[in-house]
Amino acid sequence: VYRVEDKEGKNTDINQKIEYLFHPKSIAIVGVSPDTTRVVGGRVFLNALINYDYKGRLYLVNRGGGEVHGLKLYDNVKDIPDTVDYVISAIPATFTPQLLLDCASKGVKAVHIFSAGFSEITDKKGDNLESQIKNIVRQTGIRVIGPNCMGLYYPKTRLTFLPESPTQSGPVGFMAQSGLNSNIAILEGSTRGVYFSKAISYGNACDLNECDFLEYFMHDPETKIIAGYIEGAHDGDRFIKILKEAAAVKPVILYKAGNTDYGAGAVASHTGTLAGSNKVWEGLLKQAGVIQVYSMEELLDAVLPFIYMSPPKEKNLGLIGMGGGGVVQAADECAEAGLRIPPLPLDIRQKLEGIYNSETGASFRNPVDIYWIRSDLTRKAIEAVAEYELFDLLLMQITLFDTGQIWELMVKPCLKAIASLSNEINHRTAISLRSVGEAGFSAIALEEQRALAEAGFAVFPSAARAANAIIKFMDYHQRRGTAADVPALI
Amino acid sequence: VYRVEDKEGKNTDINQKIEYLFHPKSIAIVGVSPDTTRVVGGRVFLNALINYDYKGRLYLVNRGGGEVHGLKLYDNVKDIPDTVDYVISAIPATFTPQLLLDCASKGVKAVHIFSAGFSEITDKKGDNLESQIKNIVRQTGIRVIGPNCMGLYYPKTRLTFLPESPTQSGPVGFMAQSGLNSNIAILEGSTRGVYFSKAISYGNACDLNECDFLEYFMHDPETKIIAGYIEGAHDGDRFIKILKEAAAVKPVILYKAGNTDYGAGAVASHTGTLAGSNKVWEGLLKQAGVIQVYSMEELLDAVLPFIYMSPPKEKNLGLIGMGGGGVVQAADECAEAGLRIPPLPLDIRQKLEGIYNSETGASFRNPVDIYWIRSDLTRKAIEAVAEYELFDLLLMQITLFDTGQIWELMVKPCLKAIASLSNEINHRTAISLRSVGEAGFSAIALEEQRALAEAGFAVFPSAARAANAIIKFMDYHQRRGTAADVPALI
Repeated sequence: VYRVEDKEGKNTDINQKIEYLFHPKSIAIVGVSPDTTRVVGGRVFLNALINYDYKGRLYLVNRGGGEVHGLKLYDNVKDIPDTVDYVISAIPATFTPQLLLDCASKGVKAVHIFSAGFSEITDKKGDNLESQIKNIVRQTGIRVIGPNCMGLYYPKTRLTFLPESPTQSGPVGFMAQSGLNSNIAILEGSTRGVYFSKAISYGNACDLNECDFLEYFMHDPETKIIAGYIEGAHDGDRFIKILKEAAAVKPVILYKAGNTDYGAGAVASHTGTLAGSNKVWEGLLKQAGVIQVYSMEELLDAVLPFIYMSPPKEKNLGLIGMGGGGVVQAADECAEAGLRIPPLPLDIRQKLEGIYNSETGASFRNPVDIYWIRSDLTRKAIEAVAEYELFDLLLMQITLFDTGQIWELMVKPCLKAIASLSNEINHRTAISLRSVGEAGFSAIALEEQRALAEAGFAVFPSAARAANAIIKFMDYHQRRGTAADVPALI
Repeated sequence: VYRVEDKEGKNTDINQKIEYLFHPKSIAIVGVSPDTTRVVGGRVFLNALINYDYKGRLYLVNRGGGEVHGLKLYDNVKDIPDTVDYVISAIPATFTPQLLLDCASKGVKAVHIFSAGFSEITDKKGDNLESQIKNIVRQTGIRVIGPNCMGLYYPKTRLTFLPESPTQSGPVGFMAQSGLNSNIAILEGSTRGVYFSKAISYGNACDLNECDFLEYFMHDPETKIIAGYIEGAHDGDRFIKILKEAAAVKPVILYKAGNTDYGAGAVASHTGTLAGSNKVWEGLLKQAGVIQVYSMEELLDAVLPFIYMSPPKEKNLGLIGMGGGGVVQAADECAEAGLRIPPLPLDIRQKLEGIYNSETGASFRNPVDIYWIRSDLTRKAIEAVAEYELFDLLLMQITLFDTGQIWELMVKPCLKAIASLSNEINHRTAISLRSVGEAGFSAIALEEQRALAEAGFAVFPSAARAANAIIKFMDYHQRRGTAADVPALI
């Protein structure tokens, strides 16, 4: 469904322009100090690539020579006795134009400029340096990612900027004008079962920009969902045109930052980008069919249903919980978001009473407040609720905390039972999983969250966030008339 | 400031009625199975009290006799050869009226009924049983907490219902119609530096109810801030009257659940309470001077500034961050909430440039995107920003993730530097601390959160949640005209 049937996989211009960036046979990192106590600068990328087991050939460049990790430090990129596909530059901004000229004469195809100190600074020197880079790009044909960014993440070729990157690939193509937000997407994503085809942190975007990356993702067969953090557009008309085309063929989820005057000021200081009017952006994104979100947290939330759920036809929710107060809050939050929570019919309520050998019928009305004491009963109860044909979707509200034996002997096996249910109901079930309490237990709870995601469930930190994401997911499919029979991606 | 000068500590009726509940010299738990594989029912309380090192005398009751943990199981509460101050009942609802009669004849002062199966169930039998209990209360003078609740938490006498309860006391008195939400408040609170004078989970409230507990907290010298989760009011007129009185002398923060029709339905199933109209409640709470919140998460957020911060006079924020994308999001979120982020004057910006020997002036404008590489510089930079007399408050936006050596050698020492700053600036500084990534690291990040709270900072999971809580805190003091010179509690 999210396929560009007539375009996908073809060697379009944009494919040629971007695709090779992700497949460098050799990389040179420029600006790696031989001082082993230094952990920033070029070291960030060296450590990341070594840790992530980058499969290509790795070269290091630093004026003055020496050796790091048994790798020779070349004085200049031109001294490397091999072809160099891709260069990561962590040298001061001032020296960057000369490096680009050296790279061009060496035959390097693309340079990722990590260094800051360009158009984002108040000093005119920054603007001048960025102009020089643009000129060199025009004159030599070399391509630039950045400056002021973290560059590329591609699990398949073990390309990364993060030492602890997930090795698993996924359906989401992510682009961001922020390195931090790229880290957040990749790391937070992995605990929630959101994995990436590719991620691109592109900073000031003085050459390749959001238009290029968006167009690339639109055609990329590995990317089924496009998500991005943008601070503005470097070529507004082209961006809107490509956004429309991309949103027509794949879900596009965008966090456009700098919504407020103060946020726009922060954007100018961050990447030197003009944030533009919030009202105008909201209109444009809506018109283009883009799903707009307002934080990195919401971005990941919004992606989840597109991976794990098939779109509910209507808004009738079966709400299953653990503990009255939690269920009440979840009911309020789901209702606020626009979901309906219609009562279960008598026969299913009686079935639940039978399962628990219980007389407390009220808590089986919907919301259904079941007892998390025996995994076989939890499984049966959820199956009984899921049987009701009026329910378009289910939500489980679960709060984890350390209750000693109750956690070990009762709640934990119930979570396992839910994971084992997955093939039957996971595509129409969201889970709100909250954990409270001390550090040791929070790690246990995060492992449970990961296990539920691995079992194919969309897991959220609260019912409010689940409901918000699901409503956006439903609106998207309703707008397109595709709610009827879209399968989940996973 | 939050003192009831003319009432506090006096032996009012309500003090006499409630205070002794927290000081039982002996407790009997009724309904403790001798089967050691059972972990629910009366065992919950037995394990909790033993684990928490309850200092009084503990007796167990179970028909059929036997022994548990070396403690004899008495057939009937009347057989216990000692006075019994307080009884926790975990026997089926049906047997509860007889137990109450036995307790009354034994001279027990109060019974906490954990068991469910009363007015919250659809069966009329539940209503009948609850009526019988009310009659026994009237006839015998015995007092009841519950039914359908977790009871009392009081660190000073080691009274609890949670095996892993924090032993530290604090300024917050908490009452809740939900056991789960009491657990959440206590456990989640402790990781954020929110500790409790007392907490009361009171369920269906067939005898002692929210009016009694609220009135008690109003007079309790150990309680400086009152927080609660309520599903409705059992005596509306009295509740509103006491609310007004309480809110006049201490901050009262309430989460009134059942805001939506579906939520109100869930409330009825949970504690048999009439939720009432949301509009009416909003008006009443506002009029009474109560700070209304809409989730347990927001409740804890709202409590924090009352403990850790002195009220900012105006809304001028100095925003200090780590990483451009995070700072931009924080700026947007703070501005959305109504805070202002005015630019730093040139002299302080130059000072920051001097500290970092840096030319990138733009990122020091405000928001201030500092480098978290050397703890001494981080400390100096924050001090420089804090110097600006226009700033009424500071917010630090910090995102933690595993960057290996950078985390160990740079970021972690910077967090320590912030903690050491505390005495100078913590009362006007909020911290938004987010951690992303794998389970092991989440535990590390939670320990850092706890350390910052221990250093006297109000720590929130996002800038949006920090700003929301701070605005509520400011509104409260503005309304009362007390914004000028209220010190933080801690």
